[in-house]
Amino acid sequence: MIITLTTDFGLKDPFVGAMKGVILSLAPNVQIVDITHDIPSYDVIEASIVIKEACRYFPVGTIHIVVVDPGVGSQRRPIVLSGKGNQLDQIFIAPDNGVLSLVLGFSAARHITNDSFFRNPVSRTFHGRDIFAPVAAKLATGTPIESVGPTVTNLVTLSSSESPTVLRVDKFGNILTNLRRDQLGVGFEIRVGGMKVRRVLSSYSEALPDELFAIEGSAGLIELCMNQGSAANRLNLRRGAEFEVETGTLNQ
Amino acid sequence: MIITLTTDFGLKDPFVGAMKGVILSLAPNVQIVDITHDIPSYDVIEASIVIKEACRYFPVGTIHIVVVDPGVGSQRRPIVLSGKGNQLDQIFIAPDNGVLSLVLGFSAARHITNDSFFRNPVSRTFHGRDIFAPVAAKLATGTPIESVGPTVTNLVTLSSSESPTVLRVDKFGNILTNLRRDQLGVGFEIRVGGMKVRRVLSSYSEALPDELFAIEGSAGLIELCMNQGSAANRLNLRRGAEFEVETGTLNQ
Amino acid sequence: MIITLTTDFGLKDPFVGAMKGVILSLAPNVQIVDITHDIPSYDVIEASIVIKEACRYFPVGTIHIVVVDPGVGSQRRPIVLSGKGNQLDQIFIAPDNGVLSLVLGFSAARHITNDSFFRNPVSRTFHGRDIFAPVAAKLATGTPIESVGPTVTNLVTLSSSESPTVLRVDKFGNILTNLRRDQLGVGFEIRVGGMKVRRVLSSYSEALPDELFAIEGSAGLIELCMNQGSAANRLNLRRGAEFEVETGTLNQ
Repeated sequence: MIITLTTDFGLKDPFVGAMKGVILSLAPNVQIVDITHDIPSYDVIEASIVIKEACRYFPVGTIHIVVVDPGVGSQRRPIVLSGKGNQLDQIFIAPDNGVLSLVLGFSAARHITNDSFFRNPVSRTFHGRDIFAPVAAKLATGTPIESVGPTVTNLVTLSSSESPTVLRVDKFGNILTNLRRDQLGVGFEIRVGGMKVRRVLSSYSEALPDELFAIEGSAGLIELCMNQGSAANRLNLRRGAEFEVETGTLNQ
Repeated sequence: MIITLTTDFGLKDPFVGAMKGVILSLAPNVQIVDITHDIPSYDVIEASIVIKEACRYFPVGTIHIVVVDPGVGSQRRPIVLSGKGNQLDQIFIAPDNGVLSLVLGFSAARHITNDSFFRNPVSRTFHGRDIFAPVAAKLATGTPIESVGPTVTNLVTLSSSESPTVLRVDKFGNILTNLRRDQLGVGFEIRVGGMKVRRVLSSYSEALPDELFAIEGSAGLIELCMNQGSAANRLNLRRGAEFEVETGTLNQ
Repeated sequence: MIITLTTDFGLKDPFVGAMKGVILSLAPNVQIVDITHDIPSYDVIEASIVIKEACRYFPVGTIHIVVVDPGVGSQRRPIVLSGKGNQLDQIFIAPDNGVLSLVLGFSAARHITNDSFFRNPVSRTFHGRDIFAPVAAKLATGTPIESVGPTVTNLVTLSSSESPTVLRVDKFGNILTNLRRDQLGVGFEIRVGGMKVRRVLSSYSEALPDELFAIEGSAGLIELCMNQGSAANRLNLRRGAEFEVETGTLNQ
């Protein structure tokens, strides 16, 4: 059984170690996989994009804990989503702040209220350790999802831009956009930071030196790239920046 | 069986990988958990605080390796502390430089001298790989603690300040102090960096915008915080900084 | 069975998590060990040095995946090297760009062509996830190496400098050179950044305050160090920098 962790805790503090200790104390045979702990502090949008992309490669039954939580200690609910019967068939545990709103296809959502699963006492500042970790461990060892608490329906969702927008920038400076390939059509032009992009290449190595180009990224969305260079630095773009697209001839 | 690692090695060098390879070569079924490798270089105090906090969440029998070692290659002793019979009942392996002096309740301390457990030859610069890792692996696979070497009693301890002091700053900029809640009393005032703190809140979300406030942190000590902001940046405070406290009315 | 990962992916993106998900989906009982994901982007030389050093501490049968790949999507070949019968007896999976050229003693090298092992479809930008990870998982679960593809002989190798050169700088600022101890002799002088080094010490603690000294590092090569200081910062040296050595009396 696999439990993954996605947080904004960083790696210099004892936070991540504490969560792992709690999990392994309750579920010694679980395999813990770090997705990332380098989500920028409180950045729910970034976390929602990262977990959406990463979860697709994990097996059925994987439990994902996502703790990016500007409202820890407030009234926001801890929730469990499960995909029993759908394509993913995985379990997600997170605060109900929209961080899971890009992961689609759930058949059930529950409000975690059964405090017999929590560490005692529950701190007001570290629900990752005191609520999310022990609940995940319980589910990993066979506790049925129904026991965590009542079903909920009105989940918090993040609003997303309809305009062409930078979703995130990866470590290589590639710019992940919210555009799908089929939205661009043939003969398109992307205008961004004083540069123009007219080609979707199928690999970095096809690019000319210093060329800004588009590629269909591994998540199925258009990315703006420079071969062995940082497109984000060159264009001075960050998450949320908007840009212009003139679409070409579309396949209807 | 779990072995945890706390070091100042960072993650860009092959150091941590080498330690893990040594451990898994000798004890293939061990589960290795990274607490952190981002302790500032040679910062024994920071490491002592982090391991004290992190170890509490791990199960009985866990072996913790802590390698932050300004004196590697000098005469400082490698030691094993064990808590058989006490509340922790865990094992700690480290240089005898005070890095374990905040972890209390040991029933036995031994000087690691049995070089049949060491890698051969032992380098003068990397005891983490050549001494601490193989000794931990041996203990994880059932070697009795008595076999590592003779008992020691005069362990190195770190001196700590009695004055109100910044112990460390976490990733979110929260300032962990050496104050306990009951030392503040009712009607206290903390004066720090030109600001005043008069409230201990029970969660971040109770704070006013831009308010500096105190909270009883997950380690049971007072932390100074700003809601979704960095108190450390705002106050320009670092580890070791002292500040003023006017205590209020204390219980009895 | 152990699979190690050495990449330039960093830890903030979902890349590493995706690779681990792919591996664990195919080989649930594998133990995954991160060597590092902090290789500078596209830095094949750095990766070649790190994997050469790290692999030595892992047990027989370990599978190492190394993905630092300036030419992803181009014609460069994915390869598997195996050391059956030699001292290492491990397996290495990487792009054929020289990143494995410091790991010696292979008895077999194969071009990975059997796309029945790949994820389908194979992206043009993320062979770590779509080719290297699933092939490693297949080999970890008993698939014979012969099945990945035909043998190759003309592997890409990195050229290396004969002159005294900085190979890399570690987290502590120690400067790893390409010099062996026996090349220096007795009465040598290293001239670097306006300073002179005339002593090879056996531990940091023997150094005078502020002394620049040499040490035989854990990899068997000469390192330039300052006790609890950064030699690299002091000398303002980076990877590839050359320096002067006047050798002393050599043992013939």
